[in-house]
Amino acid sequence: MTAVAPATGARVSALRAKLKEKELDGILISEGSNRRYLSGFVGTAGFLLITEAQAVLATDFRYVEQAGRQAPAFRVERIRAGSDWLPKLAGELGVRKLGFEAENVTVAQLGRFKDAFKSAGEAAPEVELVATTGITIEQRAIKDSNELALLQRAITIADEAFDEVSEKIAPGMTEAEVAWQVELAVRGRGAEAVSFDTIVGAGPNGALPHHRAADRVIREGEPVVIDMGARYEGYCSDLTRTIILGKPDARFGRVYDIVLGAQLTAIETLASGMTGAECDKLARTVIETAGHGEDFGHSLGHGVGLEVHESPGVGPTSKNVLENGMVFTVEPGIYLSGWGGVRIEDVVVLENGRARVLSNARKFVT
Amino acid sequence: MTAVAPATGARVSALRAKLKEKELDGILISEGSNRRYLSGFVGTAGFLLITEAQAVLATDFRYVEQAGRQAPAFRVERIRAGSDWLPKLAGELGVRKLGFEAENVTVAQLGRFKDAFKSAGEAAPEVELVATTGITIEQRAIKDSNELALLQRAITIADEAFDEVSEKIAPGMTEAEVAWQVELAVRGRGAEAVSFDTIVGAGPNGALPHHRAADRVIREGEPVVIDMGARYEGYCSDLTRTIILGKPDARFGRVYDIVLGAQLTAIETLASGMTGAECDKLARTVIETAGHGEDFGHSLGHGVGLEVHESPGVGPTSKNVLENGMVFTVEPGIYLSGWGGVRIEDVVVLENGRARVLSNARKFVT
Repeated sequence: MTAVAPATGARVSALRAKLKEKELDGILISEGSNRRYLSGFVGTAGFLLITEAQAVLATDFRYVEQAGRQAPAFRVERIRAGSDWLPKLAGELGVRKLGFEAENVTVAQLGRFKDAFKSAGEAAPEVELVATTGITIEQRAIKDSNELALLQRAITIADEAFDEVSEKIAPGMTEAEVAWQVELAVRGRGAEAVSFDTIVGAGPNGALPHHRAADRVIREGEPVVIDMGARYEGYCSDLTRTIILGKPDARFGRVYDIVLGAQLTAIETLASGMTGAECDKLARTVIETAGHGEDFGHSLGHGVGLEVHESPGVGPTSKNVLENGMVFTVEPGIYLSGWGGVRIEDVVVLENGRARVLSNARKFVT
Repeated sequence: MTAVAPATGARVSALRAKLKEKELDGILISEGSNRRYLSGFVGTAGFLLITEAQAVLATDFRYVEQAGRQAPAFRVERIRAGSDWLPKLAGELGVRKLGFEAENVTVAQLGRFKDAFKSAGEAAPEVELVATTGITIEQRAIKDSNELALLQRAITIADEAFDEVSEKIAPGMTEAEVAWQVELAVRGRGAEAVSFDTIVGAGPNGALPHHRAADRVIREGEPVVIDMGARYEGYCSDLTRTIILGKPDARFGRVYDIVLGAQLTAIETLASGMTGAECDKLARTVIETAGHGEDFGHSLGHGVGLEVHESPGVGPTSKNVLENGMVFTVEPGIYLSGWGGVRIEDVVVLENGRARVLSNARKFVT
């Protein structure tokens, strides 16, 4: 299914180095994208249990055969009902300190695991369940060459789809019609799916940053925010453009130029070693200085990869340090209730300390 | 957006009765479909805090305006960074015993909530966080008339789409092409989306119950499992048919008839008051008696609604008791590694103690 096999071996090795650092004998991976990233298995249910010497993929009947094909480096174990497979497996692998993903395991699930260890009693060794956060997420923030190639494909598909559809938008079309044209254009270029429900916000709807496309008819002279993406072999792109049909009024021109200025400023001046918060500040200062600080209520950006929102965070409170190989969005916006919004978003990769823009869709110029 | 406004008032009242029963002053709803079900708000982030006297929807900047429109019965509070909104709000509403959804709140999230209550110190009252499971999930298992109408629409869209596409399938088409035709047919009938990635499993791929459509070319004489659904105003349908191009061989005929017999047996004999496990057994006994017990490795069915898999569970270990108003799938299957699979799935609603079939797509007859 994957043109170039992901380098899961190198990824598991890097994870093992982390386990050593944290003095864990093993880790239970339950989060779907982490599972896929480390093993190659794309099914939606299952756990990885990775120790220094072993790599096991535990999944249920539905996925056993598929798991064997997609994750050849893992031993596949079939899970039946209940949670007693975990103490059994942990015992067999000689795990004493077992990390789990605290950002993914629910309170109820952890309770079931603990109960299973208790019921196993003497049959299972004393296992300590250790909450961990961000281990694989941090690893995933820095993309390898295989991932960059897939991301670039997902981005190019969205760019081309936007360029095609934006030419066809005419007054009288509804937001939903535009969203459907976007989806057809994305799928027609080989994407598995759109990477999230396409947002088309015309006029006042553009003031709702996560408005979904609805029945509103697009009229001349009102801004239209289009936020869209493609998923290609699991990797997500994310692109926003704001357009206007007909002649923009002075207000639109001014708001648009502030947002574009803020975006270009951030792209040209961000650098590795900055925190996400420092990067966010580069664009926010421009918008604040122009008197619209209160109208830019979201973060400047976020990492993209197997998830459309992932590490690093690029917002006012993000302490993530930007490093070479990270891929993230730069998407300032200004939203005026009752009027509409302007948002402009590109994806960049950090290389040699600076941003290289991966997006290439046409930008409206006032 | 919704043709008929959901009866969120009645739903919140029913929840309040449950809170009283469990001696809770309030509950924090974090699970997305529960949030939508109780409030009408369809955004993807936010919490409900519901007490005897109050109903608050806390969400971030991106959704504040939308939340106000979609959840008029709720007071909307804007969340800024961090978790200190929770002790503040709980204090203001006078909550002492606060339930949370243990199947949704992660271990890390609960840690952040506890830290926020600690930091709030004397400013916030002593609040006890109580793990709850299934309160709203159980409520959602029994559909109201508004939900039944939306489910029927989602089911009919999938039925019509299957009937249209199955006529067009010809040897030489790939699984992925069929899946795309299914999606076009579903969307063309007004669905928001497919309710899950369409499964098209031809020949040996049919033995992988959750195989996704891939590049395999469909050949004459091999079984093709098509598992598909539509999402309409949030509600999901789920339909499986197994077809064969050309002349079925004796093996296919036999396997198909066992599965169809098992399905019809379950539909005609299931009754309210049974547990999910007892219902599962109705079909499983047929398949076991025919010598294929080991080849039917999944549950007979599952509830459908705002989620494509929800309560009740209808599998070998399910203790859920079937009640009037529940909507669930009946989908036995037989999977033979290297050869393929047969699965047949309809959605039923329990009415007057018996199953009424809501699905109406053509069934292949040997």
